Amino acid sequence: MQLNRLTWPSMLGSDYEGQICSIAGALEVVGERWSLLIVRNVFLGLRRFDEIQSNLGIARNVLHTRLTRLLEQGVLEKRLYQEHPPRYEYRLTEKGLDLWPTMVALMQWGDRYTPSSGGPAVVLEHRACGGAVDEHRLCEACGASLSVRDVRALPGPGAAPEHPLLRRAAHQQDAQPA
Amino acid sequence: MQLNRLTWPSMLGSDYEGQICSIAGALEVVGERWSLLIVRNVFLGLRRFDEIQSNLGIARNVLHTRLTRLLEQGVLEKRLYQEHPPRYEYRLTEKGLDLWPTMVALMQWGDRYTPSSGGPAVVLEHRACGGAVDEHRLCEACGASLSVRDVRALPGPGAAPEHPLLRRAAHQQDAQPA
Repeated sequence: MQLNRLTWPSMLGSDYEGQICSIAGALEVVGERWSLLIVRNVFLGLRRFDEIQSNLGIARNVLHTRLTRLLEQGVLEKRLYQEHPPRYEYRLTEKGLDLWPTMVALMQWGDRYTPSSGGPAVVLEHRACGGAVDEHRLCEACGASLSVRDVRALPGPGAAPEHPLLRRAAHQQDAQPA
Repeated sequence: MQLNRLTWPSMLGSDYEGQICSIAGALEVVGERWSLLIVRNVFLGLRRFDEIQSNLGIARNVLHTRLTRLLEQGVLEKRLYQEHPPRYEYRLTEKGLDLWPTMVALMQWGDRYTPSSGGPAVVLEHRACGGAVDEHRLCEACGASLSVRDVRALPGPGAAPEHPLLRRAAHQQDAQPA
């Protein structure tokens, strides 16, 4: 019952290329170990190599390989954030942003089945009205159909002090005029 | 910026246990290579070891390891389908069925970004009215909010003749009284 070979270009290092299936296709691009956690980090605002490396605690060469693949696949893009010396950060493309439903689905499943004792580390909120995001990515308060740009990720009760969202919030407070 | 250790029991072979994050938690359970494709197969009705092995073309020992883990994690359960000699098949538990939103999100992303030339191999349809399933898992025709039991997976235009859904359809036709 082996399925036909894929007609789209097969990719190096893949084990899934015998599968005609959009799920296999998606996992070809983001299914390698760490890839989805790297994408999650960029969603949460960790965009620089050292930040991502420090957060995940993975070997630099592994991170480099994963980032290169995500760039080649058009999930991430590099942007210059400093000219002298040139420094780049990683941003999600539209293709990368379209992984948001997958991120939300995994997060909601994890919240239910692998909860941490302190509660969720991240909660999602409809920017416009503050409502929670339900399993269909509709706003529980106003019923709006939500896309990634309509939603804010906030540190939840289980977020450790070092959580990227808490660090970002602290940084934004520091930047306020006294 | 290394996050605190998880408080839920760490699992063998995991690289993600330093992460407090529901996405990491979910990937601990289903993020190993092949795990999500095995779950996909059970969703599509391939429930027996040999069927799954033949479809994925992976080593039997790898499949055995993955199935054992999915059983231990309560994503799958074994059911006796033949008594003499005893033979078992794999079924999704409620925890496994709750991976459906993740499956749909990955499939829709794959349909968009890794399309096969013949079109999608699988299309989803609201059982009650035949409507298509939108990105929020609402029915495009009647607007109903859909769960896994409301939706039928049908072979799409890109399904190869050996596709599990086509085989199942042929088998059901054979079983009709003449």
